[in-house]
Amino acid sequence: MSEMTSRVLEESLGKTVLVRLKGGKSLRGRLKGFDQHLNLVLEETEDNTDKADVRSLGTIVVRGDNVVIVSPPPR
Amino acid sequence: MSEMTSRVLEESLGKTVLVRLKGGKSLRGRLKGFDQHLNLVLEETEDNTDKADVRSLGTIVVRGDNVVIVSPPPR
Amino acid sequence: MSEMTSRVLEESLGKTVLVRLKGGKSLRGRLKGFDQHLNLVLEETEDNTDKADVRSLGTIVVRGDNVVIVSPPPR
Amino acid sequence: MSEMTSRVLEESLGKTVLVRLKGGKSLRGRLKGFDQHLNLVLEETEDNTDKADVRSLGTIVVRGDNVVIVSPPPR
Amino acid sequence: MSEMTSRVLEESLGKTVLVRLKGGKSLRGRLKGFDQHLNLVLEETEDNTDKADVRSLGTIVVRGDNVVIVSPPPR
Amino acid sequence: MSEMTSRVLEESLGKTVLVRLKGGKSLRGRLKGFDQHLNLVLEETEDNTDKADVRSLGTIVVRGDNVVIVSPPPR
Amino acid sequence: MSEMTSRVLEESLGKTVLVRLKGGKSLRGRLKGFDQHLNLVLEETEDNTDKADVRSLGTIVVRGDNVVIVSPPPR
Repeated sequence: MSEMTSRVLEESLGKTVLVRLKGGKSLRGRLKGFDQHLNLVLEETEDNTDKADVRSLGTIVVRGDNVVIVSPPPR
Repeated sequence: MSEMTSRVLEESLGKTVLVRLKGGKSLRGRLKGFDQHLNLVLEETEDNTDKADVRSLGTIVVRGDNVVIVSPPPR
Repeated sequence: MSEMTSRVLEESLGKTVLVRLKGGKSLRGRLKGFDQHLNLVLEETEDNTDKADVRSLGTIVVRGDNVVIVSPPPR
Repeated sequence: MSEMTSRVLEESLGKTVLVRLKGGKSLRGRLKGFDQHLNLVLEETEDNTDKADVRSLGTIVVRGDNVVIVSPPPR
Repeated sequence: MSEMTSRVLEESLGKTVLVRLKGGKSLRGRLKGFDQHLNLVLEETEDNTDKADVRSLGTIVVRGDNVVIVSPPPR
Repeated sequence: MSEMTSRVLEESLGKTVLVRLKGGKSLRGRLKGFDQHLNLVLEETEDNTDKADVRSLGTIVVRGDNVVIVSPPPR
Repeated sequence: MSEMTSRVLEESLGKTVLVRLKGGKSLRGRLKGFDQHLNLVLEETEDNTDKADVRSLGTIVVRGDNVVIVSPPPR
């Protein structure tokens, strides 16, 4: 993981991020942790893949190999 | 695996977690063990992919590369 | 592989386990061996994917990367 | 990563690149960082997969294993 | 590869085995060699995926990552 | 990467190669660089998957794990 | 790669082999080189996936992870 990737994710700790997964699932939650594989810990996570049916997932661990994109919050 | 991921999973040991697998399968069971690949041991596991047809699986070993999300129990 | 995973599989040696594979295949056989990749040796294996057409496979080696779940026998 | 790949990506830092992902998604953003796995940090990113419905994603981290092609800007 | 897996395959050397591949292909041939990735060398191989159209493949090398199951001959 | 593979690719540097990608995409461009993962740098690249709609991509980096075949120019 | 696999492939150098790829493509060409990942260099290659539309590919490099089966020529 490049220093730039680490920095962007470290600055996002404690903030809400958007996560797109392979297969199309879309998550939104507060970033609590990450590692170099992009394994993520999110809090107060919502599965908002279907905007008309947002589901609350609470705290979750996401296995990194499912991750396509992590969007930190706008500054 | 980040320290945060380990901590979340360690705090979930002995508690019921939800596990989403690639391909859409959804499991619910008591977490008995895990490793850095997210290989899991679950007890009293139910396959609740189809809410209308929940199947009891008992104790299972889940190969980590199938795991998308692990949801610890709400605190 | 966690100590817990090894212990569950070691206790299953010589006993009948259920194995779910990627792609949906379901096997049932007596566990004769395993390694940390979850490569398995099963004896008297049946492919019971289609309950109406159970097929006898005898002794088989399963390549671990195909494994989703291994269910040891109920205690 | 070959020296040539690094050089092409280093020369693209701070410039707008096109990124094609597995599954067909197409992104356009300013390259802020990359590593040898082709993990990318993009700024002011747009998802322009559907030219008729371009979506703004802001700053994102792309996990490298999803990347098919990175196109640096024309010189 | 566990000692048990090696032993099962070593005892199958020179004998006819069945091999199921990812994607559904089914092969039958005499096992001439294998390694820890389950790369296989088979002789007098037949592709019997379609029982009504068995095709002779002769000697082949199978790349191990395609292998799902290897069935040694009944003893 | 075998010496033979390296030699074929080194002799193709600066020349036009055809590249087939997983998923069916077909590219044509001048080979500027490669590494042992088959990550490629191509110049004046065209996406000629659809012969009736050839698209110019300019200079690109191709992530090697997408590559199926690289065809050097005829000698 | 087992000694047996290497031997089979070494004995095939300079001879015509059949190669089946993931996704169903079928190639036929003279084997010029290979490595332990089963990356192949083929000469005078034909894509004979569609027997009614055989296409000449000339010299090609095949990335090994696409290979399912390599069939050396009958002796």
